[in-house]
Amino acid sequence: MMTIKNLLDLFSQTRADSEKICQPLQTEDYVVQPIVDVSPPKWHLGHTTWFFEEFLLDPYFPDYKRFHKQYAYVFNSYYESVGKRVVRTDRGNLSRPSVQEIYEYRKYVTQHMEELISNHWNTEWNPVLEIGIHHEKQHQELLLTDIKFILGNNPLQPIYGEITDEVLIENTQKEFIEIKEGIYHIGHELEEFCYDNEQPKHRVFLEPYAIANRLVTNGEWIEFINDGGYSNSLLWHTEGWDWVKKNGINSPMYWFKNQNEEWSHYLLSGAKKINTKAAVTHISYYEAFAFAQWKELRLPTEFEWEAAQSKINHGSRWEWTESAYLPYPNYKKPDGALGEYNGKFMVNQKVLRGSSIATAANHARPTYRNFFHAPLRWQFTSLRLAKSL
Amino acid sequence: MMTIKNLLDLFSQTRADSEKICQPLQTEDYVVQPIVDVSPPKWHLGHTTWFFEEFLLDPYFPDYKRFHKQYAYVFNSYYESVGKRVVRTDRGNLSRPSVQEIYEYRKYVTQHMEELISNHWNTEWNPVLEIGIHHEKQHQELLLTDIKFILGNNPLQPIYGEITDEVLIENTQKEFIEIKEGIYHIGHELEEFCYDNEQPKHRVFLEPYAIANRLVTNGEWIEFINDGGYSNSLLWHTEGWDWVKKNGINSPMYWFKNQNEEWSHYLLSGAKKINTKAAVTHISYYEAFAFAQWKELRLPTEFEWEAAQSKINHGSRWEWTESAYLPYPNYKKPDGALGEYNGKFMVNQKVLRGSSIATAANHARPTYRNFFHAPLRWQFTSLRLAKSL
Amino acid sequence: MMTIKNLLDLFSQTRADSEKICQPLQTEDYVVQPIVDVSPPKWHLGHTTWFFEEFLLDPYFPDYKRFHKQYAYVFNSYYESVGKRVVRTDRGNLSRPSVQEIYEYRKYVTQHMEELISNHWNTEWNPVLEIGIHHEKQHQELLLTDIKFILGNNPLQPIYGEITDEVLIENTQKEFIEIKEGIYHIGHELEEFCYDNEQPKHRVFLEPYAIANRLVTNGEWIEFINDGGYSNSLLWHTEGWDWVKKNGINSPMYWFKNQNEEWSHYLLSGAKKINTKAAVTHISYYEAFAFAQWKELRLPTEFEWEAAQSKINHGSRWEWTESAYLPYPNYKKPDGALGEYNGKFMVNQKVLRGSSIATAANHARPTYRNFFHAPLRWQFTSLRLAKSL
Amino acid sequence: MMTIKNLLDLFSQTRADSEKICQPLQTEDYVVQPIVDVSPPKWHLGHTTWFFEEFLLDPYFPDYKRFHKQYAYVFNSYYESVGKRVVRTDRGNLSRPSVQEIYEYRKYVTQHMEELISNHWNTEWNPVLEIGIHHEKQHQELLLTDIKFILGNNPLQPIYGEITDEVLIENTQKEFIEIKEGIYHIGHELEEFCYDNEQPKHRVFLEPYAIANRLVTNGEWIEFINDGGYSNSLLWHTEGWDWVKKNGINSPMYWFKNQNEEWSHYLLSGAKKINTKAAVTHISYYEAFAFAQWKELRLPTEFEWEAAQSKINHGSRWEWTESAYLPYPNYKKPDGALGEYNGKFMVNQKVLRGSSIATAANHARPTYRNFFHAPLRWQFTSLRLAKSL
Repeated sequence: MMTIKNLLDLFSQTRADSEKICQPLQTEDYVVQPIVDVSPPKWHLGHTTWFFEEFLLDPYFPDYKRFHKQYAYVFNSYYESVGKRVVRTDRGNLSRPSVQEIYEYRKYVTQHMEELISNHWNTEWNPVLEIGIHHEKQHQELLLTDIKFILGNNPLQPIYGEITDEVLIENTQKEFIEIKEGIYHIGHELEEFCYDNEQPKHRVFLEPYAIANRLVTNGEWIEFINDGGYSNSLLWHTEGWDWVKKNGINSPMYWFKNQNEEWSHYLLSGAKKINTKAAVTHISYYEAFAFAQWKELRLPTEFEWEAAQSKINHGSRWEWTESAYLPYPNYKKPDGALGEYNGKFMVNQKVLRGSSIATAANHARPTYRNFFHAPLRWQFTSLRLAKSL
Repeated sequence: MMTIKNLLDLFSQTRADSEKICQPLQTEDYVVQPIVDVSPPKWHLGHTTWFFEEFLLDPYFPDYKRFHKQYAYVFNSYYESVGKRVVRTDRGNLSRPSVQEIYEYRKYVTQHMEELISNHWNTEWNPVLEIGIHHEKQHQELLLTDIKFILGNNPLQPIYGEITDEVLIENTQKEFIEIKEGIYHIGHELEEFCYDNEQPKHRVFLEPYAIANRLVTNGEWIEFINDGGYSNSLLWHTEGWDWVKKNGINSPMYWFKNQNEEWSHYLLSGAKKINTKAAVTHISYYEAFAFAQWKELRLPTEFEWEAAQSKINHGSRWEWTESAYLPYPNYKKPDGALGEYNGKFMVNQKVLRGSSIATAANHARPTYRNFFHAPLRWQFTSLRLAKSL
Repeated sequence: MMTIKNLLDLFSQTRADSEKICQPLQTEDYVVQPIVDVSPPKWHLGHTTWFFEEFLLDPYFPDYKRFHKQYAYVFNSYYESVGKRVVRTDRGNLSRPSVQEIYEYRKYVTQHMEELISNHWNTEWNPVLEIGIHHEKQHQELLLTDIKFILGNNPLQPIYGEITDEVLIENTQKEFIEIKEGIYHIGHELEEFCYDNEQPKHRVFLEPYAIANRLVTNGEWIEFINDGGYSNSLLWHTEGWDWVKKNGINSPMYWFKNQNEEWSHYLLSGAKKINTKAAVTHISYYEAFAFAQWKELRLPTEFEWEAAQSKINHGSRWEWTESAYLPYPNYKKPDGALGEYNGKFMVNQKVLRGSSIATAANHARPTYRNFFHAPLRWQFTSLRLAKSL
Repeated sequence: MMTIKNLLDLFSQTRADSEKICQPLQTEDYVVQPIVDVSPPKWHLGHTTWFFEEFLLDPYFPDYKRFHKQYAYVFNSYYESVGKRVVRTDRGNLSRPSVQEIYEYRKYVTQHMEELISNHWNTEWNPVLEIGIHHEKQHQELLLTDIKFILGNNPLQPIYGEITDEVLIENTQKEFIEIKEGIYHIGHELEEFCYDNEQPKHRVFLEPYAIANRLVTNGEWIEFINDGGYSNSLLWHTEGWDWVKKNGINSPMYWFKNQNEEWSHYLLSGAKKINTKAAVTHISYYEAFAFAQWKELRLPTEFEWEAAQSKINHGSRWEWTESAYLPYPNYKKPDGALGEYNGKFMVNQKVLRGSSIATAANHARPTYRNFFHAPLRWQFTSLRLAKSL
């Protein structure tokens, strides 16, 4: 269990990290919401702050006075049990509170939290604080991917900074690691923090399979494109194929052809030519599935992935799995508003495993279950192939 | 393996059965498509016929002449690899071919098929014939549920006939049958027909659980309604809750209050008062999940269902499970157009197990996997509760 | 004023005419509603019947018993003040009442009406009867155009019968008839029937103009197509251009290219090659406007059309005018439910003048004002050019 | 004709005025686009600047170098003939160019324009310059109304400043001014600037009518509400009624009930109680029409308005008329890209006459024709009653 000192440091560091991610932004970049899945950066900054105010300061800080009585309404997200909320599609319509006001709000809440942790703390509150910290870390990843979407879809293609968001796979032959049939333990049981959806630890039987030692590369993806992958309906799920046709999809997100007709893509450090040795990124589950079909292979399940995770390199890209996002046997939703955290999304989403270059330090674990809808591509997603033996 | 004589009988019986289901209809009832999921009965009659023409008569009958060259276009459904098709939402706009022409088409194809089976048969074609027969049996169930929707949503509430589509659960206390942890075999391996998605047989580890010996009743559902089940967001998935609010859902499909403010429902034999001892029916997965949450229980997975199936009564209602519709380990999609049969739907659907009073004789099996989207309610769906031990 | 005998004959003839139009239909053709603007023929037959029951039999026939108490709900259209109604997009979902039941309903109402007119008539009811008759004549035109849409959009292109719905313009040079500036009387004042929207007669000042002696031909339209008319945004209204792009419009409705790449179109007598000397038909207002722009001419206003009507041939096609559908000075909406007849549509529609080959005998007048939304094309619409002098 | 000195002054003053309107904004307020009709203030500032660069600097300034080659793409609005453009619904997704960059763009273009006018001017360019200036004045009005929408729909209801956007009608009895029948001259013919749509001057015959000497008040509107105006379908156009029901409309835009259940509204100076003596504002054409129906009166046509304009007070609110926005007889669209200015919108819009407190000085004229779609309410719209005599 973490000491209070450790918790305080982790809290303060996390709060500082969010602001650091936004440091290269201009004020205008904080405001827009180009698609419903991408929230304005200023909303992320406010929402993560509201969490601490709502679930810790308001109930526990002596005589706490909220920074602004309307902010609970503006910055609540999906917690239906905690009052009215701004609908998700409205976030990008709100010019106020201003960015400066939100930074003041952050400062106010951070200071009161530090005071609460330092001088009035009750260790019974640890779980909520840990969720709050990890909740903010989760939004740090969204901050970066949302910023990439905001800048990368602007016709001026502005540069964010010298961050490397292309990951090379050098000197690596693709090989399949064979895993024996048997009962495997899946899920989290250690003492340290995890989300409710990673528990309880339980047993899963796996038939024998093999899993690739590396991600699929851009070079392989270009072969898929050149072989007509985006125009062969037989490779796709019905709804994937409808998505391709309706949206005119013919390459991963952020890809375009430059003046010399070479495949290029927008990166946070500016647009550049595709590196064929880098991992393919910004693909939907539909695309990952179709690619695997084209290879006459398949995606691993999340259980196969977890059972093999110590034998594969991971951590640069979220990896689509074949698994649907469902509760583990004996899963218990936490009581109260925090019970809405994960369970209410357990339908019609796919599990992604691993983590990405945008994931906050110490946030992911081998048992971590990320989840998105099948067509979404703005996260740093990729795929790893598998096969039954 | 079936003899040719058996196959012929099964074929002829199946063809006759489809027409028998439509016997009480007026010509107009064959034509309409009130929602995208409900196809016009005349389309079902034509589509199941086209299947035999496309996959058996056209390739194998000596000098076969198609009944009408445009019918392949009109009656193809989702087989992207076999030419253009009428989009699903257009089926209800087509007044022609007329019902009589479709019956002539059926007769023509049935006779040629009987001739093919009797005099020119090659047992290598058995699998396609069996799929064709089972495909038609599947559409027989859809025929009845689509007819119920067409008549039940008409303000005149016309009677279909003296069919009993309400299933009593008499003298049955709800009890939970306990199942031990262990490795269970799931899937089909017998010689007789099954669909690709039931294969291959494989091993699944189940943690200990208990499963109810009967379905939930209308009486229990009325308690759920009266306890505010449809207005408590915490019981629902986020997307289920959105569905409730957007569509103003407050009871199962076909339910309404009569002049005395008693819960009633449309039945194929005419509208009547709800019987509280009958199994609740025509509910979506979202509703099934919310009900289980309200009971502080859960739905079984499809594996738990199959492992327990010999110990429970089933067969009157399709039972929503918690499982997403996914391929079994080592699942192989058949080659060619028939490969589109099941695999292409394996995303964002839920599995239902069992069968219903509308299921054709000898069509379902304990390993049978039905699947629908979470909000759909026009099938004879119900739920059975389960819990982890 | 019409005698009772004349009214009775006109009533009986009108009732018979509607049924004659439907005589070539198969039962299935009566049922479908492929787009919201096209109603099922059986609905037209029921709705025109309901009008007489609602506004004459129910209030005035001694001890009248309605044929079926639910029909007022099923066949009401837009009369908000007379109870609930089936929303327009639901009409095509209703298989019942059956076609035969609707013919029985017609017979019942026709007989009671004939009895009412013959034996219990009060001449104060003449205006309502006349509206009812003209209302049915109006629906006769819709019946034919809706039938054309239903059959013409079916992939089998079924033939309706030996009706000539292509109108040749033979031996006619296009000439412009000059009309002098001055005050013209517009609107209806004669004793015979007219709609409220044609009244009152009033004065309009017209600047000098010229109007074409004939409609635009298919030949001229093909020149427009070949000159890129459908791809030159500058010829179109902004919303017309959006309509072109969204719907992929590149020719009038029902046009297609045959195997020899010749422009052809569906006619009620079957598909055939375009006759370049026939009047172009089935065009939207947007197309009419763009064509006139391309010719550096314009459409006439409805006032210019009416002032010149005695000098031009008209009657085969409804002619789009530049006028919006608005009330005449001193226009009075009739009291009660019949007040909803015309006035409530006087926004965002364009006026068409003349009449078409589908217009019922004795239905149109030189002062008649037809009106449709700018994108609609399923009526027998055409255009006549004009210019300011 | 204006001297070059006058033109230069008018230009410089207009450029300064736009920036003055934005002076109270925070950077974030410049960025958002809450509905498609409301553009981000920064877009208005850029778009009006682009106009001068595109139509004057680029063709005529010696060796002109554009400020940024992508801006023509970002800031073009509806000129289809001048290259690609950002679709209107995307404007609010663009965080860049930043507000500061746009001010620099403005400064660059303003200085080059001043140089062009002062030292290189050719009076043949006067018409384009005048259009550019009036185009910017038009956007000044939109700037203010869009800012009101952005702030007034924010849950924090931020204050813009001490501007009075409520207009009292004091000591004025409503009286109807009678106008005699006769031929009136409508449209513009003076030497000074006007838009193409106000020309040519022409003759219109008006039947005798009367027009109110003042606008309808909030007090009268509250009577309309209290008398059930928003729930009586018979007062409304069909599409107006659909709009009311679909959007849950029950009062003018910006109205809400305060804690004491008194009608209040958002003003640029902050929310306050409704003043019953002020002119009703922020109503749609549908509402104006329904109100007039309720009074058993009507709206004036734009011709009636213009013929009476010297006898009535106007200038504080745009007044909906019954007229559709259509070309005058002999209307000529200007050549080239500027020809897209007005003509392409002449379908399905209503004319508003007068001007509002947000209209730039010297922008409106008695012949000025403003136009909006029937449901729009974010302009300072109101209504004046009329009747036929």
